[in-house]
Amino acid sequence: MATTVSNAPQSGMRDFLPAEVRLRDWATSVITSTYEQFGFTKIETPCLENIALLKRGDCGENLQLIFEILKRGEKLEKVVAAARDNGAKAERGDLTDMGLRFDLTVPLVRFYSHNQQNLPNPFKSIQIGSVWRAESAQQGRYRQFTQCDIDIFGVKNEVAEIELLQATSEALVKLGFDGFTICINDRRILANIAKFCGFEEARFENVFIALDKLDKIGLDGVGHELAGQGHSAQAISALNSLLVSLAEGPTDSLKQLEMLTSTINLDDQAASGLRNIISIVAAGSGGKFKMQFEPSLVRGMGYYTGPIFEIKYPGYNYSVAGGGRYDKMVGKMSGRDVPACGFSIGFERIIGILMDNQFEPPGAMERLALIFEDGRDKLEDVMLASAKLRDRGFAVVVQAKKKDMRKQIDQLPTQGVHKLCMFKGDVVNLEIKSLTV
Amino acid sequence: MATTVSNAPQSGMRDFLPAEVRLRDWATSVITSTYEQFGFTKIETPCLENIALLKRGDCGENLQLIFEILKRGEKLEKVVAAARDNGAKAERGDLTDMGLRFDLTVPLVRFYSHNQQNLPNPFKSIQIGSVWRAESAQQGRYRQFTQCDIDIFGVKNEVAEIELLQATSEALVKLGFDGFTICINDRRILANIAKFCGFEEARFENVFIALDKLDKIGLDGVGHELAGQGHSAQAISALNSLLVSLAEGPTDSLKQLEMLTSTINLDDQAASGLRNIISIVAAGSGGKFKMQFEPSLVRGMGYYTGPIFEIKYPGYNYSVAGGGRYDKMVGKMSGRDVPACGFSIGFERIIGILMDNQFEPPGAMERLALIFEDGRDKLEDVMLASAKLRDRGFAVVVQAKKKDMRKQIDQLPTQGVHKLCMFKGDVVNLEIKSLTV
Repeated sequence: MATTVSNAPQSGMRDFLPAEVRLRDWATSVITSTYEQFGFTKIETPCLENIALLKRGDCGENLQLIFEILKRGEKLEKVVAAARDNGAKAERGDLTDMGLRFDLTVPLVRFYSHNQQNLPNPFKSIQIGSVWRAESAQQGRYRQFTQCDIDIFGVKNEVAEIELLQATSEALVKLGFDGFTICINDRRILANIAKFCGFEEARFENVFIALDKLDKIGLDGVGHELAGQGHSAQAISALNSLLVSLAEGPTDSLKQLEMLTSTINLDDQAASGLRNIISIVAAGSGGKFKMQFEPSLVRGMGYYTGPIFEIKYPGYNYSVAGGGRYDKMVGKMSGRDVPACGFSIGFERIIGILMDNQFEPPGAMERLALIFEDGRDKLEDVMLASAKLRDRGFAVVVQAKKKDMRKQIDQLPTQGVHKLCMFKGDVVNLEIKSLTV
Repeated sequence: MATTVSNAPQSGMRDFLPAEVRLRDWATSVITSTYEQFGFTKIETPCLENIALLKRGDCGENLQLIFEILKRGEKLEKVVAAARDNGAKAERGDLTDMGLRFDLTVPLVRFYSHNQQNLPNPFKSIQIGSVWRAESAQQGRYRQFTQCDIDIFGVKNEVAEIELLQATSEALVKLGFDGFTICINDRRILANIAKFCGFEEARFENVFIALDKLDKIGLDGVGHELAGQGHSAQAISALNSLLVSLAEGPTDSLKQLEMLTSTINLDDQAASGLRNIISIVAAGSGGKFKMQFEPSLVRGMGYYTGPIFEIKYPGYNYSVAGGGRYDKMVGKMSGRDVPACGFSIGFERIIGILMDNQFEPPGAMERLALIFEDGRDKLEDVMLASAKLRDRGFAVVVQAKKKDMRKQIDQLPTQGVHKLCMFKGDVVNLEIKSLTV
């Protein structure tokens, strides 16, 4: 029986050994303390949510990737009995009542709707937690991974966006990242562009989905896809010209925005908000990162209503953080709209880059092995020696001497142990040796 | 549609607001850093495990409480098609392939079996994570809760137990607990007692289950239950006399153990191990806690093979930590026995007691509200002022002035904000006021 079940983690899920946990915990604490300086506070929601709630949002393909929980006890028996009595098979939807969260935004909006009366206004939350998606294993994606979000509820103007961008970029800088670019756009500007080009208003989302692929498939590819989707050749050509003229225009974001304003009818609030966000965040960048207006930036989720942004890191072709404003989502759950805005660090990507660079997190306790001879040494004294070494600031690993002591000691540095104390029966004089790798 | 799904968390699961997260995070960090001093290192396993693996252990009633994950895609279609083609209903077991972990021990043993070649020997792990149990809601138990375990693999002798007990009691003392009692027994001594009384060897586990209820139902209750289970009247009476004579005997644990040794045939190793554990841990207690030999202590899990222990806190009728040695569990998964021993803090219980005592965790950043007038003040300057206040060590909450500013300010202390800076357009001179509650 022992051999029939593999001891490997389930497909797409990972065991984390001590060194990796230490890196992840260090990154988490740097991010958390930075966000706390900006007045954010940490909250937590359960990992399981009502399946109906999870399936309600504008969350695109994530809805197809929910791990669902089988009903239990009487509830399950009822479904099975009904299926049997009707001679029909049980519908998949009848079998489950909860699901594992696929992001932290849907649970957060439920949390806010439920606890609003006990939360400050504005409310600024930090969430760091696991989410689950039933991605196909071939894609090499994780099926359990950590998300790391900040969100602000109750702030209508761009102070929210500015704080999200400042806090996240400061956290990234403290994690050792620099030279990154914050790309920013606004959903309303996207709509202005689509309208200017002459696309059908009812099909704007479809235009955005194609435009979102610009990075990967280029201008021609986007045009091809739009044609395939049946959009008018005239609109496609107008979009093409506009994007070409923007690409050939000024590189400075504010000038680019100005040029766009002079060409098409831009939403005033959107344009002035973007100007403020870009100039204020850039002014505080200390040369560590750039702000870039990117009129073709879309972001996947249908729930965004205003500014949208993501962070690109040189040498990596995916974004390391992304977010935007979603003013209509609370209203869908609670019946009353509340302005909301969030930014999510791609935690796994950040950790992946740190590991690519063999980054060693600072601040670990120095580990020391205390080796004693079982049978000879009094355990009482060994434990006393261990306590004394802990008092001196060491993380102490007590080990009985093995037959091959040389090998035992040689292995210590590979286990992160760089100090050694051979116990010689004397609790007072403890001699500490450094182990070189 | 918005009104059909409740915004409350699912039954038995909880939303944590900022104050509670801060308490939980503080407790976690105190426990972690204490355990690290003892040479333990943190690991993590996925929350989902193979359902067959979860159902394999000697984990008693927990096996009935697993949240199971519905199969997906083709795998699910196959089950449904097979059921349809055979005109039979799909079996529950065919519908699911994974389950949420119900404890951290089963996943740890899988982790150890899988990663052993990359882990030091001995291996000392810290695990802090959520587990899930489908308890019935009436019992008022949580269906998602945090466990906080340390385990040592590869140490045969009582150094393991001593370190587990020292580390956990030191963590509890640092969390502000004292006056607690560590109760200890040994599964082998329990077997010696059952044998001495004349119970059938094949039914020892059944005897232990009744004995485990001694605290709740008293000696008579245990006798009653054993009789109901068909155990011999003679054995029950012998057990009764033994427990009475132990209760009337010496209160000192070592003397009690001595008395038991003189009465019945005790496993030598078990008895000498217990003596060492009790005397060495008691010697280092600094008067903060007591060690107590408790010959009726059982602990629920069938997988324990040696010393077992739990911590009782005065005024609470449940244990706040529990654990023991389980030398046969790795062998069941990997085919080769490895000595193992663990101790689990009842994290939710600890947090509950701290909250009962309105405990305020130390070390929070001081929170300050920076209030500006939207439309009048230049955002650029407001954000600059915010940065300056962060540099001075405050956690800054930027807020636009509301119509009812008095009320806005009065609410700040209830949100944990005790400092105020009214922005007056001057970025250099920022005046800070203390807010009294």
